[in-house]
Amino acid sequence: MMASRGWKKLSTDIVAETPLFTMKRERVVNPRNDHEFDAYVIDLSDWVNVIAITPEREMVFVRQYRHGISRDTLEIPGGVIDPGEDAVAAAVRELLEETGYSSERVQHIGTVDAQPAIQNNALHTYLVIDAEPTAELAQDHGEDLRVELHPLDSLDELVRTGEISHSMMLTAFHWLTLYFRKNGSI
Amino acid sequence: MMASRGWKKLSTDIVAETPLFTMKRERVVNPRNDHEFDAYVIDLSDWVNVIAITPEREMVFVRQYRHGISRDTLEIPGGVIDPGEDAVAAAVRELLEETGYSSERVQHIGTVDAQPAIQNNALHTYLVIDAEPTAELAQDHGEDLRVELHPLDSLDELVRTGEISHSMMLTAFHWLTLYFRKNGSI
Repeated sequence: MMASRGWKKLSTDIVAETPLFTMKRERVVNPRNDHEFDAYVIDLSDWVNVIAITPEREMVFVRQYRHGISRDTLEIPGGVIDPGEDAVAAAVRELLEETGYSSERVQHIGTVDAQPAIQNNALHTYLVIDAEPTAELAQDHGEDLRVELHPLDSLDELVRTGEISHSMMLTAFHWLTLYFRKNGSI
Repeated sequence: MMASRGWKKLSTDIVAETPLFTMKRERVVNPRNDHEFDAYVIDLSDWVNVIAITPEREMVFVRQYRHGISRDTLEIPGGVIDPGEDAVAAAVRELLEETGYSSERVQHIGTVDAQPAIQNNALHTYLVIDAEPTAELAQDHGEDLRVELHPLDSLDELVRTGEISHSMMLTAFHWLTLYFRKNGSI
């Protein structure tokens, strides 16, 4: 079902290289009409995001500046998987670095393609239960994070009001919804 | 709450221009530590996606090749808002062009930032009820689409099995979940 109907790649060249991603231009042929055109693809490492819930049923968020929209967002912690790193290790590390929280109870709840029209990377979502503060933040030079706790029960309202406005947060919350539908709420 | 803590942009230059997006490099200063570095931002038009449901409670999907991952995906219809076009008009147009379906019952159910870390565009989700086939497909030269109907009740299973694997489909389904929680299922 998932195979393509024979798209041909004629050539690939590099358009731009940055520390975080490489942009490629691919010359492709549409099998439906033999139309030839340029497709653009961004090479990125896989990403993780982490839904961390405290024993008091609060979720752990970070507020941070986002360069794409030039303003702050409220997000769950997450980031880029390092070369050779397991996704689960990256989830544990990003949670600890960005929020200072950790727990033994870490589980994978879903994986998607981040943006298959133009990117080739996956986004893995982890659920961390009984998260507690165990360390100071360890921010990168390029980060300016503030940790916030919000009740799990306020999550829908945070989304409806636009306080949370990042598409991939909703992706994670949908995995959480499916988890709760299958396992019952925590 | 949403204002930033004073990130400064020192300069902006264009790294790459394509028909679909412009990539910019911004020299920025972190207010926390005065660290200066390059942030990359992709300028994109806003996107719409459309959850279309037939009178028989089936959802209207398109299967298509995605260049980012070099294989086919199962997605709801959607695309780029044209210059000067209303989001709702784009939703109606994309649904009709990509699937041949339409309806009078079109409503906006949510908007997010598509990927605020590196992009500046929004993603608007529309719900179309009583969608029925009213036209032939009108595919772009670069598209090779096939229309599929799946029962609304099979949606969770399509996500769990990975048959639907695009993060922004889950974003749309989460808006649908919030809509159903507030208004009851349709």
